[in-house]
Amino acid sequence: MRPLFKQITIVGPGLIGGSLGLAIKKKGLARRIVGVSRRTSTLHQARKRGAIDRGTKRLSEGVAGSELIVLATPPASIPKLVREIVRSTQGPLLLTDAASTKAWVTREAERILPRRIQFVGGHPMAGSERTGVKAADRRLYEGSLCILTRTHRTRPEALSAISRLWRAVGAEVVTLTPRQHDAWVAQISHIPHLAAAALTLAPQTPALKLAASGFASTTRLALGDPILWEEICRTNAKEITQGLNRLLKELNAFKKNLRSSRTGTLRRQLAQAQTRRLNL
Amino acid sequence: MRPLFKQITIVGPGLIGGSLGLAIKKKGLARRIVGVSRRTSTLHQARKRGAIDRGTKRLSEGVAGSELIVLATPPASIPKLVREIVRSTQGPLLLTDAASTKAWVTREAERILPRRIQFVGGHPMAGSERTGVKAADRRLYEGSLCILTRTHRTRPEALSAISRLWRAVGAEVVTLTPRQHDAWVAQISHIPHLAAAALTLAPQTPALKLAASGFASTTRLALGDPILWEEICRTNAKEITQGLNRLLKELNAFKKNLRSSRTGTLRRQLAQAQTRRLNL
Repeated sequence: MRPLFKQITIVGPGLIGGSLGLAIKKKGLARRIVGVSRRTSTLHQARKRGAIDRGTKRLSEGVAGSELIVLATPPASIPKLVREIVRSTQGPLLLTDAASTKAWVTREAERILPRRIQFVGGHPMAGSERTGVKAADRRLYEGSLCILTRTHRTRPEALSAISRLWRAVGAEVVTLTPRQHDAWVAQISHIPHLAAAALTLAPQTPALKLAASGFASTTRLALGDPILWEEICRTNAKEITQGLNRLLKELNAFKKNLRSSRTGTLRRQLAQAQTRRLNL
Repeated sequence: MRPLFKQITIVGPGLIGGSLGLAIKKKGLARRIVGVSRRTSTLHQARKRGAIDRGTKRLSEGVAGSELIVLATPPASIPKLVREIVRSTQGPLLLTDAASTKAWVTREAERILPRRIQFVGGHPMAGSERTGVKAADRRLYEGSLCILTRTHRTRPEALSAISRLWRAVGAEVVTLTPRQHDAWVAQISHIPHLAAAALTLAPQTPALKLAASGFASTTRLALGDPILWEEICRTNAKEITQGLNRLLKELNAFKKNLRSSRTGTLRRQLAQAQTRRLNL
């Protein structure tokens, strides 16, 4: 493919940022990729794996000369990085992120940014409980979904450019408002994560010795990084609370149907779940 | 291996019974396996796959001449089958089952059975959301766990014989009381199933279009057969209710920690879950 950008900076070349770097290199979507990380070991590994061409620990140095900056860091880190980017750059610039929550991140970024910097919120729905550039995979986004967000400040050409990048690495792009993103993603990602954690914590210790593949599959998400997930919860607390209420309602319906002597109500609830899961 | 039995009857040669039949044949643990099913197609497929040598729709015919009868049918079906077996047989006999709940099943079986028939409750913790003899696999039990139950009526030699059979097909055997089985298995199998179903039902319909691999993994168990799972819930309602209360307590703690401005409490709960899951 023809390069979409001369130089891209990836801040945080871990699983998400590193996989994006590998895919960009493989498809020739940028002439050069610069990686920024606080850790020398991450930069070293990212360079060794070919996810970045050059690495630096200094953000101001890393963003110099780039047309696009991708923030592949946890949500709470983003406002501070955005402030530094404003201070360290001068010309027009495209900025995007990959954080799992969008309303808070987008509000903060738009509050800070001058007009010369175009921000488009992004959330590639890929990855796993594995972390770090060692787990990076140039095919991570093939067949995946990437949500981009649009606000009244989003310029169509900025949205198109970020959209083209994600489609070029194999993702299907869906555009939502930040609030819609946060509500829906709470329901299908953040709540399953908390449920997996709760399911892991609920059994008595000796019961865990009997756990088989079903338990392992249902609780796999609980392996996620607690620091990252606390940030996700904090920056999407309202929607996650509402999502938890939806889940609690279903669980309480099961509890009620278990007590009820009327046959059929419990089976109906189970059958509805089975049908919904089959249609996924 | 030397045959452990001359003839075994498997009632319900589906995924669980069929896989056991295939493993018994492969390891030469019985000279002959007879399959009993209400469906001609099941018997036909089980014979074709080599899970049974001979099939019949009539239980009285299927149990004639067998030293061991394995009931690989849903829990609620067991008392009726046990009554028919009492009527259709005369000599000493070993009887076991593979139902996912044990207190109710064992109580019913022991209430019905004469002294000449030794019953040992069994629960092979293997299988998946797939069902039927088409999904049967002679290696299903290799490396799996099989729980056998012991009551004051269980004879040690009967327990040993059933234990030998499951170990011979590759399972690790754990012996528990039926009540202990039901409490622990509710916590690590029945509750995860209901939680997977609740997680599938909770999201708003458009949110499901964003579901990725994490959601798929967490809700996989919701694919299970609603008729079977209603029986499991009905025959273990008390322990499942208690297990649901344990889960609800954890979810409510998440809800409270989300509201709390004290940092650390939410992260601590997530970190405890991660550690527990890592140690699985």
